[in-house]
Amino acid sequence: MIKAGIIGATGYAGAELVRILLGHKETEIKWYGSRSYVDQSYASVYQNMFELVEDTCLDDNLEELARQVDVIFTATPQGYLSGILTGEILSQTKVVDLSADYRIKDVKTYEKWYKLEHKSPQLIEEAVYGLCEINREKVKQARLIANPGCYTTCSILTAYPLVREGFIDPDTLIIDAKSGTSGAGRGAKVGNLFCEVNENIKAYGVTTHRHTPEIEEQLGYAAGKEITVSFTPHLVPMNRGILATEYASLAKKPDGSYPSAEELRAAYHKYYDQEKFVRVLKEGVCPETKWVEGSNYVDVNFVVEERTHRVIMMGTLDNLVKGAAGQAVQNMNLLFGLPEAEGLELVPMFP
Amino acid sequence: MIKAGIIGATGYAGAELVRILLGHKETEIKWYGSRSYVDQSYASVYQNMFELVEDTCLDDNLEELARQVDVIFTATPQGYLSGILTGEILSQTKVVDLSADYRIKDVKTYEKWYKLEHKSPQLIEEAVYGLCEINREKVKQARLIANPGCYTTCSILTAYPLVREGFIDPDTLIIDAKSGTSGAGRGAKVGNLFCEVNENIKAYGVTTHRHTPEIEEQLGYAAGKEITVSFTPHLVPMNRGILATEYASLAKKPDGSYPSAEELRAAYHKYYDQEKFVRVLKEGVCPETKWVEGSNYVDVNFVVEERTHRVIMMGTLDNLVKGAAGQAVQNMNLLFGLPEAEGLELVPMFP
Amino acid sequence: MIKAGIIGATGYAGAELVRILLGHKETEIKWYGSRSYVDQSYASVYQNMFELVEDTCLDDNLEELARQVDVIFTATPQGYLSGILTGEILSQTKVVDLSADYRIKDVKTYEKWYKLEHKSPQLIEEAVYGLCEINREKVKQARLIANPGCYTTCSILTAYPLVREGFIDPDTLIIDAKSGTSGAGRGAKVGNLFCEVNENIKAYGVTTHRHTPEIEEQLGYAAGKEITVSFTPHLVPMNRGILATEYASLAKKPDGSYPSAEELRAAYHKYYDQEKFVRVLKEGVCPETKWVEGSNYVDVNFVVEERTHRVIMMGTLDNLVKGAAGQAVQNMNLLFGLPEAEGLELVPMFP
Amino acid sequence: MIKAGIIGATGYAGAELVRILLGHKETEIKWYGSRSYVDQSYASVYQNMFELVEDTCLDDNLEELARQVDVIFTATPQGYLSGILTGEILSQTKVVDLSADYRIKDVKTYEKWYKLEHKSPQLIEEAVYGLCEINREKVKQARLIANPGCYTTCSILTAYPLVREGFIDPDTLIIDAKSGTSGAGRGAKVGNLFCEVNENIKAYGVTTHRHTPEIEEQLGYAAGKEITVSFTPHLVPMNRGILATEYASLAKKPDGSYPSAEELRAAYHKYYDQEKFVRVLKEGVCPETKWVEGSNYVDVNFVVEERTHRVIMMGTLDNLVKGAAGQAVQNMNLLFGLPEAEGLELVPMFP
Repeated sequence: MIKAGIIGATGYAGAELVRILLGHKETEIKWYGSRSYVDQSYASVYQNMFELVEDTCLDDNLEELARQVDVIFTATPQGYLSGILTGEILSQTKVVDLSADYRIKDVKTYEKWYKLEHKSPQLIEEAVYGLCEINREKVKQARLIANPGCYTTCSILTAYPLVREGFIDPDTLIIDAKSGTSGAGRGAKVGNLFCEVNENIKAYGVTTHRHTPEIEEQLGYAAGKEITVSFTPHLVPMNRGILATEYASLAKKPDGSYPSAEELRAAYHKYYDQEKFVRVLKEGVCPETKWVEGSNYVDVNFVVEERTHRVIMMGTLDNLVKGAAGQAVQNMNLLFGLPEAEGLELVPMFP
Repeated sequence: MIKAGIIGATGYAGAELVRILLGHKETEIKWYGSRSYVDQSYASVYQNMFELVEDTCLDDNLEELARQVDVIFTATPQGYLSGILTGEILSQTKVVDLSADYRIKDVKTYEKWYKLEHKSPQLIEEAVYGLCEINREKVKQARLIANPGCYTTCSILTAYPLVREGFIDPDTLIIDAKSGTSGAGRGAKVGNLFCEVNENIKAYGVTTHRHTPEIEEQLGYAAGKEITVSFTPHLVPMNRGILATEYASLAKKPDGSYPSAEELRAAYHKYYDQEKFVRVLKEGVCPETKWVEGSNYVDVNFVVEERTHRVIMMGTLDNLVKGAAGQAVQNMNLLFGLPEAEGLELVPMFP
Repeated sequence: MIKAGIIGATGYAGAELVRILLGHKETEIKWYGSRSYVDQSYASVYQNMFELVEDTCLDDNLEELARQVDVIFTATPQGYLSGILTGEILSQTKVVDLSADYRIKDVKTYEKWYKLEHKSPQLIEEAVYGLCEINREKVKQARLIANPGCYTTCSILTAYPLVREGFIDPDTLIIDAKSGTSGAGRGAKVGNLFCEVNENIKAYGVTTHRHTPEIEEQLGYAAGKEITVSFTPHLVPMNRGILATEYASLAKKPDGSYPSAEELRAAYHKYYDQEKFVRVLKEGVCPETKWVEGSNYVDVNFVVEERTHRVIMMGTLDNLVKGAAGQAVQNMNLLFGLPEAEGLELVPMFP
Repeated sequence: MIKAGIIGATGYAGAELVRILLGHKETEIKWYGSRSYVDQSYASVYQNMFELVEDTCLDDNLEELARQVDVIFTATPQGYLSGILTGEILSQTKVVDLSADYRIKDVKTYEKWYKLEHKSPQLIEEAVYGLCEINREKVKQARLIANPGCYTTCSILTAYPLVREGFIDPDTLIIDAKSGTSGAGRGAKVGNLFCEVNENIKAYGVTTHRHTPEIEEQLGYAAGKEITVSFTPHLVPMNRGILATEYASLAKKPDGSYPSAEELRAAYHKYYDQEKFVRVLKEGVCPETKWVEGSNYVDVNFVVEERTHRVIMMGTLDNLVKGAAGQAVQNMNLLFGLPEAEGLELVPMFP
C-alpha cells in the first residue's frame, strides 16, 4: 500500500482527493493536513465522509510527513510549497503539487503573474508538468510533479492536436472559459455566496488570469515557438465543470488551401485514440460539462466555420477531478508504476 | 458473472442503474431496453456513457429477456410490469421491479391510489418488499422484488426505530418531504422545465401522493397495527436528493413519562449500528441531501421538542441511488448471495 | 416628499428597501447607512444601482438621522436598535424596525430566545407589530413599528383565518417552512457559499428558531389563548421565497362534526377578500414561491385530508418583499396616510 | 390609452410583455392571444398574474385584432407573421414583431439561415429594425417594427461604439455569448428540462445560430461595409440574462499606433452618455447579468489586452426585457410619441 499525505485536505480539491483515494485500491491516506481545522474530526468538516473517514485533521509539518509517507499531495495556496520544499524532502518522498508553484519554468514569468517571490527556484527545473497525456514518460521518472491548473488542463487538451499539427495559427487563439464555482475554493467571501453567484454569470480576471502564462508555455512547446493567447474565465452558477470554447484561425497549408474538417478530426484521433481519459466526441456533438461530472474525462470536439476560416474547439472536464484531484492521482499512478486508471474508473454522474 | 437486463434503461432511474452496474464486479448488462429509443446507441441518449457503453437500445421483450439474463430490472411506468409478468418468467429469472406494481399487498389499495386495474394480483403475495434493512432475510429467498419508492425508503427508515419501539404515536406522524427534480423523470413536461422549477418550491400531490399507502403499510407492520399518516411531497430546485422532515408526538411510557432523547437515540443505534447504508448522525447535526449525493447512504437524526412533546425526525438519501437504483442493486446482491455492498461503495460527492 | 433614512442599507433587506423606495412616488432616500461601507459609493456595493443611486454610504448616527428624516428604517442585527433607541428619537421621527427587537411583548421571552439583554424594554409596549393585514388601525397611530419576520409573516397569514375562526386546534399546528438563501443575509460564511447551498436542502435551527415565539404570540392573539407550535425552517437552493406548509387537526364543532372544506374556504375569503396583498388561490392550486417573486403578495391555500381530519395549509411570499422591505414600506404608507399599495404595485416576475 | 394586443401571450416573452404593460400608464391590453390555451384563463397559465389579469386567452385573428387595437405585439414562431401580415393591416394598426421575420433586409439571407420561404418580402423594406439606441428616429416614423433578437441586441450594443469609430477590425470580431434558459422558450423539450440544464453548460448552434446574420448586418452598417463575425451561443443554468464576451483586434490608426484605452472609453461615452438604458460601467468593473435582471438596462465595459493588441468587450442584458419585451415597449413608446422610458423604469432586482 502506498502511504499518502494531503496538505490542504479541507479545501474542495483536497476533499476530492480524499473521495478518490478512498476508492483507490493501492493507497492509504495517513495524514489529513488542515491548518484551519487542526484537531477537528475530518468528517465534521465534510459530513459526507461520516463513517468513511475516522481521522482528525493535523497541522502542517512537511518534514515529519516526508518521513511517514510515500507521496505528499499539496493542495495549498500559491507560494506555500515553494517556501518550504527542499531537495532533502524530495529525496524521501514524492510530491504532487496542486498549486502553481512549479508549473512555470521561467521564474520571472511566475513572479510577474503571481506577484510572489519564488523561494525555491532551484527546484523548478526538475519539476515535471503533470499533464499525463502529454508528459507521461517524464512523469514516470519524476520526484516532483507540478499538477496542472483546471483551466489549463482543459484549454490545452482542447487545442493540443491542432496546435501540434500546425493546423491553426496559435497566435490567433482565443480561449473563452467557463467554470463552476468550486474552482473558487471554500473561502468565505461575499463574492462566492450563493445569492451572489446563483442566477448570474460574469467574466473575471480579464487579461490577468494566472493560468494564461501556463497555457502559453505548454501550447508553445506544442507549437515549437513562443505564443500569445487571450484567455478569459467566467464564473457559472454550478458546482463543478469547466467548458473551454476556443477560437483560432486555420493555418493555410503549403499549397494555400485550408485544412479540412476531416484532417482536423484525424489529428484529434491521432493524439487521443489511445488516451482513456480524453474522449473525442462524434461529429456534431457539443461537449457538456454534466457529461463528465465526477469523472476524470475530458470531452473534446470542434466545428469548422467555413465563412471565417476559423475553427471553434470545445472541451469540458470536471475541475475537481481531471482539473485537480483526479489528475493528481493519475500522476501518482504513473509515479508508482500502477495502472494509470487505478481509482479513476469513475462513471460520470447524470443528472 | 450475473447477466442483467434493464427495461426502461433510458429513464433517470434506469440510467443510474447503468452507472452503478458498470462499477459492479459481478454483473454484466446484456440488455438496454428502451421503447422510446429502439435501435439508437445508448450513449447517444446518455452522452456521459460515451466510450463506456457500446450497446444499442432494444425494444421490450420480457420473455426473450427472461431466457437471456439472470435478473431483470424494470424501471417502467406503473401498471406495465403487472400487465405482462407471469409465474413462468419468474421461474426463469429474478425480477427487481422499480415500479410500484407489487409493493402494496392489498390490491384494492393499489387500485384506489393508482387508479389502475392490477392485472396479475396472484403474484403480489410472493413479491418481497425490498427494503433491505428491514426485509433482508426475505429478500434472499425471493424471485420477485418490489423495490421501494424513493420517498417511502426515506420516510420509513427515518421513523422506523421509533415506531418499532413504540416511542411515538404513529397516527400523529406527519411527513413533510422534499425532493430533487430527477424524481419527476425525464418526460418532456412544461412543469419540469428548467425555468419552471428553478428558483421555485412548491408542494404537490397534497393528500393524494401514491407513496402514502406504501408508507402506511410498512410502518404499520413496524407498529403492529394499521396506521394513518399525512404525507406531503415538495419539488425542490436541485437534481438529486430527498429530505424527509417528520413530526410525531412522543408516546407516554407506562409510567406516564415521555421517552428521553437518550432512549430515542439508543433505538436508532439498536436498529442501524449494523447497517452499512444507514448513518445515524451525531447529536445536533441535521442531515443535508448533499452529504449523500451519488451514494447509497441514508442519513438520519432527530431532535426532541420538550415544549410540545414531539420529536422531529430527519432523513436524507439520493433518490436515484438508495431511493431507486442503488437499492435495486442492493437487492440483487442479496438475491445472488453477493456481498451486500458490492458495487455500492460509492463515496458521496461534495460539492 | 417623505424623507427616509435606512440603517443597514447594504444588507439584502436594506437593498430591497432601496429598490422599492426608488419606485415610491412620495419618498426620497436621504441616508444610506452602512457601517461596513462608510464613504463608499452605494452603487459600488450594489452595482444593480449604478446610475440609479449616486449616494455614498454613511456611518450610523441615529440622533442626527432623526433630525433629518421623517422615517427611519432599521435593517440591523438583533439588539442594535434596542440599545440606542429613545423616546426622544421617537418624538422626532417614525421608526420602522426590521429587526426583532420590539416584536415580542414579553421581554423575558425575547431575552430567552435571542440570548440578549433588552436595553429599552420601556419602549416595547408602544411598539406596534406591523402585520398590516391584522393590525392596520394600530399601525396608523404608531411611532414605532416592529416589522414582522419573514417566516412569521408567511406562517401567520397562512393559518390566521382558521385559527381566528376556531376551525383548527392551534396546539396541533406544525409549520414546516422552506426559505431561499437571501434570508441568511450577506455575511461571508462558509455555510452560505454557493457550493454549500446549491444542490442541497437541510433543516436548521430545529426547535430553536427565534421566529417561533413570534408566531406563537401572534397566533395566540388570534386564538384568544396561549398556544405552542412546532416550527422548522429549511434552507432551499434559491435566492428568494418562503413556502410554509402547515399542518393542523381540524377542531370539532359543537355538534361533533368537523368543519367542511367550504367552511374553511369561506373563512379565508372572509379575512382576505379585501386584502390586496393576500391572494387566496383557487381550489386545487398549490402556491409556488416563484409566483410571488419580487412582489408584495402572499399566496395561500389549503387542502383538507379526510383520512386524518387534518388540514394542510400552504402559503408563499418573497422573503425580501412581503417578508421584509415590502411590508416595511406598507407600514410606512399606513403611518403617513398614503395609499397602502403605493410603491408596492410590483408584478411578480416569472420566470 | 393605447389599446394593445399580444399574439403569443403565453410564451415567456409574451408573458414578460404582460408584466411590463401592466405597469405602463398609457396602455391597456385588450387581447391575450394564445393558440395553445384558447378559452383558458390567462392567470391559470401564469399564476403570478392571479388577480392581476382577469382575461381569457383568445385564438389568433390578426385582422380582427387590427380593427380593435392600436398596436399588435407578435411573440410568435419565425414565419408566422410573414405568412399573414398585409399592408392593409399595417394601415390600421402598428405592429411590433418580436420574431425574426422582418429583421433581415436581404430575403435570401433570411431564407438561408431560417430555412423558410418568406411570404411577404414586399414588407421587409419598410420594416424598421427596432434597436432604439441606433434607429430611434426611424422607429418614430414606422408602422412595422422588427424587434431585435436577444443575443443580437446584446452583441451589437456591446461592440457598436468601437465598430462605428473604426477602433477595431470588425472581421476579427468573435462573440462568445451566454444565455439563461428562458431564451429557449416554454416548449416541453427534454433538452430544456431542469435536470438537463441544471449544473451544466454547453455551446449550441455553433456556426449556425440564426442571430449571426442579424449581427453582421447591423454591425456592417456601423462599419460601413459588409463584415463577417463568429458567434457562439451557450446555455447557462439560470432563468434570465445574457452575457456577451466579445473579442476583436484593435485597428491601427493612420500613424501606425493602436487606439488607447482612453480613446475606446471616450467612444463608449460618446454614443451612450445620453442613453438611459445603456450603462457604461466604470473602468475595471465586469458586467454581471444579475445586475440588470428584470430591467431594461444593457451594461457594457471593456478591457484592452496590451499583449495581443486585442480588446475584450463585455455586455449584459435581461433577455426577456431589453432582449425582447422591454425593447418592444420602448419601441412602442417611440411609435406613439410617449416618453421612451414609460413603463420601463424597472429597478434591477438583486439578488
